[in-house]
Amino acid sequence: LLPGVPAEMQAMFERHLAGPIADAGAGRVILTHGLQCFGAGESQIGAALADLMRPGQNPAVGTTADEGVISVRVSAAGDSPEQARRLLLDTADEIRRRLGQLVFGEGQATLAQAVGQLLARGGKTLALAESCTGGWMAKAVTDVSGSSGYFLRGYVTYTNEAKTELLGVRAELIAEHGAVSSEVARAMAVGCRERARSDYAVSVTGIAGPTGGMPQRPVGLAWLGLAGPHCVATRELRLSPSLSRESIRLRTVRAGLNWLRLVLLDPGSLNPQTR
Amino acid sequence: LLPGVPAEMQAMFERHLAGPIADAGAGRVILTHGLQCFGAGESQIGAALADLMRPGQNPAVGTTADEGVISVRVSAAGDSPEQARRLLLDTADEIRRRLGQLVFGEGQATLAQAVGQLLARGGKTLALAESCTGGWMAKAVTDVSGSSGYFLRGYVTYTNEAKTELLGVRAELIAEHGAVSSEVARAMAVGCRERARSDYAVSVTGIAGPTGGMPQRPVGLAWLGLAGPHCVATRELRLSPSLSRESIRLRTVRAGLNWLRLVLLDPGSLNPQTR
Repeated sequence: LLPGVPAEMQAMFERHLAGPIADAGAGRVILTHGLQCFGAGESQIGAALADLMRPGQNPAVGTTADEGVISVRVSAAGDSPEQARRLLLDTADEIRRRLGQLVFGEGQATLAQAVGQLLARGGKTLALAESCTGGWMAKAVTDVSGSSGYFLRGYVTYTNEAKTELLGVRAELIAEHGAVSSEVARAMAVGCRERARSDYAVSVTGIAGPTGGMPQRPVGLAWLGLAGPHCVATRELRLSPSLSRESIRLRTVRAGLNWLRLVLLDPGSLNPQTR
Repeated sequence: LLPGVPAEMQAMFERHLAGPIADAGAGRVILTHGLQCFGAGESQIGAALADLMRPGQNPAVGTTADEGVISVRVSAAGDSPEQARRLLLDTADEIRRRLGQLVFGEGQATLAQAVGQLLARGGKTLALAESCTGGWMAKAVTDVSGSSGYFLRGYVTYTNEAKTELLGVRAELIAEHGAVSSEVARAMAVGCRERARSDYAVSVTGIAGPTGGMPQRPVGLAWLGLAGPHCVATRELRLSPSLSRESIRLRTVRAGLNWLRLVLLDPGSLNPQTR
């Protein structure tokens, strides 16, 4: 994920570098590498890398955005593979230093892979409780081969009855606060973790649209819950109601996975006081 | 879905026709339309439409394949919109007649939309129990806006314990037959339907790979279960182990949805004797 030693980073580059070296004319070689980021907008990341992204520089640095994931692409030209690689490594290193935990992976990495690596390394297990994302978070987690090593089960509780029966969310809680609320997200995460006997549980309840929005609870609103060994927290996500149903669901899935990633990187960030 | 009367088909065309009429030079207009099919290979569908697909004909008919879905595209040229439309309607009608229930939708329709329309029309509800597809079937069903009208809940039972605890699949049954078996798929579907109190339940258990295959149970093998108001059946799916994990999972999802579609079109096809 975030390589700590040069050897590890070198191995990562060998694995992720996009194919063999391209010929850039006149004996020049070009090497490219991508860093995948989540948790900040493209403009924010662009501001952090502004000097590196000025036109005409070597390496060249550019960004692209896809449903909340910002890819930073570095292209280094050199007279030899060694020179290009050194330029690439140095710049990628500098970008990682600046962006810190915004960087979740190298090359074509996904958030689910990053989460999976952290769970597997820590020997931790995961269960999921989803409403508006309808199983997409579980789908993303199980896209990763080997996910059966840490993923135990998922609950797709689309109805209120399912939230009550499968996760133990009290009907009165739903009646009082609404299904899309911090209270219900918290109860879903706690119930999911207890029943699955997992180390971590992520829950999500929201309004994917395009219908079903209300002034107080617009399309694009979601509450995420995260329960860990010592605490539970919830988080509000507000996406633009003008986004498509697909975008809202995918961004919500990614926000949940990224939150879990940050908590796995730093379990203390799941504040007990938010319980 | 399969329009029964010209007026309905006309309305469908108005909705699905790909944008306004293109100018094909010399005052000619071209209209195009797609028919989405599942349940036969591209070559089989090509054989059924061989005479219509001969080069140089008007309308022109061609097929494309994507993970089990075969799209038949019809392009009609005419001197007027009316003439092109009549040619298009006639040919699309002939294709529908030949392919029958292989056709699940028009334009950009998905299997989940087709299933959703049938469930909504019939006032029936659905629950899902997934192992190897990991929530992807629930994700596909809930991609459809309005799916909360018929989709109740999904169980992503990735571990054997989850199959037992959430669906009531006896541990002895799993021990005796293996998690990827007709017996377990049946028990998952029955347990899912009972606990969700849904009209229909679809279950899936299989080996998505790339690891986990065995000589008797290779990568690409899946068992689907389908429980309805009066009966339950299972079906074996054998996909090539050389397919990617993503392809195997997506094709398994689609096979499950398509089976449900056919049962919803003809509930009698779910034979009580297979119980």
